[in-house]
Amino acid sequence: MSTQQQEQYKPAQSASGRQYDPKFTQHVVDTCGPKTSPRMLQIFSGLVRHIHDFAREVDLTPEEWLAGVKFLNETGKIWAESDGKRNEMHRLSDIIGLESLVTEIANYVQVDEPNYVPTSAAILGPFWSPNAPWRNLGDSIIQDPHAGTVTYMHGIVRDLQTKNPIPNVTFDMWQASSNGKYDFQDPANQSDNNLRGKFKTDKNGEYRLYCLRPTAYSLPQDGPSWQLLQSIDRHPMRPAHIHLMVTHEGYKPCITQIYPKDDPWLATDTVFAVKDDLVVDFKPLEKLPSNVPEHKGPGGPASRELELDIVLAPLGANASNAKPVL
Amino acid sequence: MSTQQQEQYKPAQSASGRQYDPKFTQHVVDTCGPKTSPRMLQIFSGLVRHIHDFAREVDLTPEEWLAGVKFLNETGKIWAESDGKRNEMHRLSDIIGLESLVTEIANYVQVDEPNYVPTSAAILGPFWSPNAPWRNLGDSIIQDPHAGTVTYMHGIVRDLQTKNPIPNVTFDMWQASSNGKYDFQDPANQSDNNLRGKFKTDKNGEYRLYCLRPTAYSLPQDGPSWQLLQSIDRHPMRPAHIHLMVTHEGYKPCITQIYPKDDPWLATDTVFAVKDDLVVDFKPLEKLPSNVPEHKGPGGPASRELELDIVLAPLGANASNAKPVL
Repeated sequence: MSTQQQEQYKPAQSASGRQYDPKFTQHVVDTCGPKTSPRMLQIFSGLVRHIHDFAREVDLTPEEWLAGVKFLNETGKIWAESDGKRNEMHRLSDIIGLESLVTEIANYVQVDEPNYVPTSAAILGPFWSPNAPWRNLGDSIIQDPHAGTVTYMHGIVRDLQTKNPIPNVTFDMWQASSNGKYDFQDPANQSDNNLRGKFKTDKNGEYRLYCLRPTAYSLPQDGPSWQLLQSIDRHPMRPAHIHLMVTHEGYKPCITQIYPKDDPWLATDTVFAVKDDLVVDFKPLEKLPSNVPEHKGPGGPASRELELDIVLAPLGANASNAKPVL
Repeated sequence: MSTQQQEQYKPAQSASGRQYDPKFTQHVVDTCGPKTSPRMLQIFSGLVRHIHDFAREVDLTPEEWLAGVKFLNETGKIWAESDGKRNEMHRLSDIIGLESLVTEIANYVQVDEPNYVPTSAAILGPFWSPNAPWRNLGDSIIQDPHAGTVTYMHGIVRDLQTKNPIPNVTFDMWQASSNGKYDFQDPANQSDNNLRGKFKTDKNGEYRLYCLRPTAYSLPQDGPSWQLLQSIDRHPMRPAHIHLMVTHEGYKPCITQIYPKDDPWLATDTVFAVKDDLVVDFKPLEKLPSNVPEHKGPGGPASRELELDIVLAPLGANASNAKPVL
């Protein structure tokens, strides 16, 4: 926080019109010692001001504060008791939109031409694998039987500044099966790396592959996050989506998700990861290009086609310096 | 949050001047369903706005957000692994001043005469006991040997509006011994209810008793709260204090703490519970009143005198309706 902002800070008013001690919050901030790092001081000051302002605005009661303490303890308990396998605290930050907001912040790029922008980022989620196999252009990521719709997906990856295609881009993708589960979660029905694969764009910047039209699924319907969702009368659904991680040396990585345009949960995704440019059309497939063989694995020939171009921002000025989380 | 406030809400700006999606936060708030209670909606909306504004203002990075998730998980883990005996989440809210702020909010009273106000509240803390023994006026709460200074404490409890003394008030007090520990924490050196007692004011609204001049002590120097204190270069000390809970039917309870005026930690109490009117003077004792016998228990005759009047606000209009936490 700059000195100017510190001087401008005025505590929020109570919605009920009460006047609380206007110096209290600044006093708490001012107890930070001289050895505090500048970034820690900025984060601590900002967080304390906002938590205090929240408490004052809503006239937070002792019972409500203690309920909040208990709720966070119960959330941490699930992490402790599952040996870190079930991270409800992470999920809690997702359902209040915080991971999605942090993703927007990390992927901020100031663009000169508002109609030509980098492909939006969306949250990574917990199901990316560093071990996805390399596959050839035109291959399928579908290894196992499924109840889904086979889709031919293709497109061109371009440079934000030159608009030229970028060859040799790593196009890494993963998706849940038609039962809403990823390979990790579903060893009885899925082999390792089912519905995962890494491709390289060709000399024209193009990728092409077969995948499934994705299926919507629900967050777990137990635990603190589910309690919170119920108390604010919200559903636990994520819209159907395919995860993408599109990377090339010299460009900001694009970690994102795409969503079918007719999914019923787009507007109310429970983790708020949908952006307008990520909503795509799975059209009926009319004709495969001559360089792409028919799909021969589980599910038979493709009946849908998805065309999706990706725009990558070169590393450098006007972009966030934050690294994406892997 | 009133409709007017909802309309006025504008997302906070990034300190770095970036423009993030101005509609995102309102979209998250708007997903709350129609069955959400009005209070839950107010609390959820307020909290989401402030957490998002915090993230935008400081351009929170994914690494910092994940560090926060991990920190809260570790804090909840201590509660889970100690079967709820060590509540680090509660302590965390204390060292950022939240319990103290909630205490101010719960004890809010609008006064007509700014120079005559109810005695300020301070946090209850974890060491109050519902089982403290009733003692007679003039008795001592000191049961066991100690290295402290015996003090004669007395005063009058008055009504905020009439200024008249209030007879038959319950004056409940507790304090740590000169080693900084309460009876619960120190069974090797202290008998049950050492340094605790409940008294009733007499027909003149007066209480009188013997206690110790209190001793400063440190919060635990391990765990997440201690980590945070170190990262913001702060000490873990609470100033010396005596806890009071002063109650009478028809009045707002006064739960508070008092502090010796020469304590070195007053200005930087690590839980921010000091208020100006709670700082008191332990004067040399000149002469006991004729109705008070000499102190005969451990520590011998008193050498100090503390005079403290208490002002209670009648229940009713212009006061917070929040109940104190017991």
